[in-house]
Amino acid sequence: MTSANESDSAQDDPGGRPFTIAQIADHAGVSIATVSKVVNGRDNVAPETSELVEGIIRRYGYRRRKRQVKASPLVDVVFHELRGLYGIEIINGVAEAARRHRLGVVVSELEGHHVPGRGWVEDVLARRPTGVIAVFTELDPDQREQLRSRDIPIVLVDPAGDPETESAIVGANNWNGGLTATRHLLGLGHRRIAAITGPGHVLSARARFDGYRAAMDLAGVPVDPALVRSGDYQITDGRDRTREMLRLSDPPTAIVTGNDGEALGVYHAAAEAGLRIPEDLSVVGYDDLPMSQWSIPPLTTVRQPLREMAAAATDMVLTLARGEALQRRRVEVSTELVVRGSTAPLPGA
Amino acid sequence: MTSANESDSAQDDPGGRPFTIAQIADHAGVSIATVSKVVNGRDNVAPETSELVEGIIRRYGYRRRKRQVKASPLVDVVFHELRGLYGIEIINGVAEAARRHRLGVVVSELEGHHVPGRGWVEDVLARRPTGVIAVFTELDPDQREQLRSRDIPIVLVDPAGDPETESAIVGANNWNGGLTATRHLLGLGHRRIAAITGPGHVLSARARFDGYRAAMDLAGVPVDPALVRSGDYQITDGRDRTREMLRLSDPPTAIVTGNDGEALGVYHAAAEAGLRIPEDLSVVGYDDLPMSQWSIPPLTTVRQPLREMAAAATDMVLTLARGEALQRRRVEVSTELVVRGSTAPLPGA
Repeated sequence: MTSANESDSAQDDPGGRPFTIAQIADHAGVSIATVSKVVNGRDNVAPETSELVEGIIRRYGYRRRKRQVKASPLVDVVFHELRGLYGIEIINGVAEAARRHRLGVVVSELEGHHVPGRGWVEDVLARRPTGVIAVFTELDPDQREQLRSRDIPIVLVDPAGDPETESAIVGANNWNGGLTATRHLLGLGHRRIAAITGPGHVLSARARFDGYRAAMDLAGVPVDPALVRSGDYQITDGRDRTREMLRLSDPPTAIVTGNDGEALGVYHAAAEAGLRIPEDLSVVGYDDLPMSQWSIPPLTTVRQPLREMAAAATDMVLTLARGEALQRRRVEVSTELVVRGSTAPLPGA
Repeated sequence: MTSANESDSAQDDPGGRPFTIAQIADHAGVSIATVSKVVNGRDNVAPETSELVEGIIRRYGYRRRKRQVKASPLVDVVFHELRGLYGIEIINGVAEAARRHRLGVVVSELEGHHVPGRGWVEDVLARRPTGVIAVFTELDPDQREQLRSRDIPIVLVDPAGDPETESAIVGANNWNGGLTATRHLLGLGHRRIAAITGPGHVLSARARFDGYRAAMDLAGVPVDPALVRSGDYQITDGRDRTREMLRLSDPPTAIVTGNDGEALGVYHAAAEAGLRIPEDLSVVGYDDLPMSQWSIPPLTTVRQPLREMAAAATDMVLTLARGEALQRRRVEVSTELVVRGSTAPLPGA
């Protein structure tokens, strides 16, 4: 029917689960070669047939022959969007850890989508990487199962949404970051402290904002809803939201932002309005990307150790690939406030 | 001796060159399995043996069996150093072109070295990518031969040194970029125009500087050696060289820089000295990285279309991988001056 190379013989533990390729083919009523193509991510299979085979794999599982279990010496890193220095920091962190294990790093981006499309998954199945690191990205349950059934482990870095509970995750303590940033401004005497947040559907952005609210609350300073604005992590968001708030009759004297990009936007709005940072307006960023120290004035920001996070995710993926258990499925690195030149005491405070 | 899979039988055109694996093994007095390991980049071969086999391949060539010629659906991109937005632009350009062909993009960096080490080459040989794109990087003749003998094509983007004549190259018109930047400042009435260059051993940096000199010369403005300073494309270089020149009794009124990073350094030195850009000091960058428009004021700079260059390099590598000839072995994209807010007429000019 097909070569011994491609088929699983049904005599290997025929009654047990999960299914071999031969059992899947039998159950689906398709050829072993077809199942093999689906399993190996080739795209010359009709979508309906592919779905049929995947359905059986989801239901009964798929057991590869042990001698076929050979991952490529590659680690896949997938970004929802590859823009700016955030991506470079992550790639460098992964590359550093991957180099120690002589693994190549495959970089892909989803053109702004948070969930990969069919083509991405097929390509990953076809190249059989040692593991996948998904940055600010989710896989849907079918995709997770497709990877799981091929023993391709996945670790999420800074996941955008609410990941399923068994996912391996590396994140930062975002709530604490938001708290610390806001407390720094409160300590400088500011009370009219605005927040420009990240996207509402992004959990890490929510956690940062909740940290802001907690700090205000604990200090007994009410949060003025007019000083809370939502952004999408873009420079233009920081600029436009700040423009709006500077037009208020009682504008903010300080702003915490969702990331360093939004903070840079605040610089622009301040410059347009003839306000000096930090004398007239204080601003705190988030991430501490390499350029932040080169803003004029240098940006006070909450440092996320992105390289370390990426390296930790790579080590986790390799642990899982060896079939070992993780010490912790969720690693949360601590954030740290880096005080530079963009924050100053409230005049007269 | 070894399985049919791994060996070339000597009966395939035994008299002709280049050598088969069996002929190489015979000549070297080692096993076919050993030759196979060297050819496939495995690292469990003693360096001396590996060098012996590579020497025979260099001398006689290596002919793979046609049915073994199967490149992975991967493109390798290697950077001498992966820092800043330059790298992101290149990766995105390669990824865009690679996506159309369902190729994964493997990213590696050489930790600041311009020539890859042995480990990098072995890893590339082992994963057999469809092709290699080397950014600001050279391969030594042996490495080029190692890739060539395995039919792995290579295209250089913005090569640092003087590449061998038959290399496929994508570059930008750097001389023209330097000329245009300087003419822009001359047109604004500036005469005390300084140049902060890139590294002297980097050809593209030299070409930009020669463009500066040509513009000055054609305008009849002598180049003051005190206004020519060499940098290494770092922000700190731009800052430090500017600091030095601002201390001169007759300081520059305008500066052309080797890249956008150095230009940002000029902003810092100007801010420290209490000078306004562009009213007191004009500055022109080079690259037009995405952040340049977000400097305050936005940077006037020479645009290199890095994404397009990377996409062109990817298309070239794929053409070569198909065994087709390139229309042109050297592609030079044009550069373009983008006038923003960092340049202004010389006061009183």
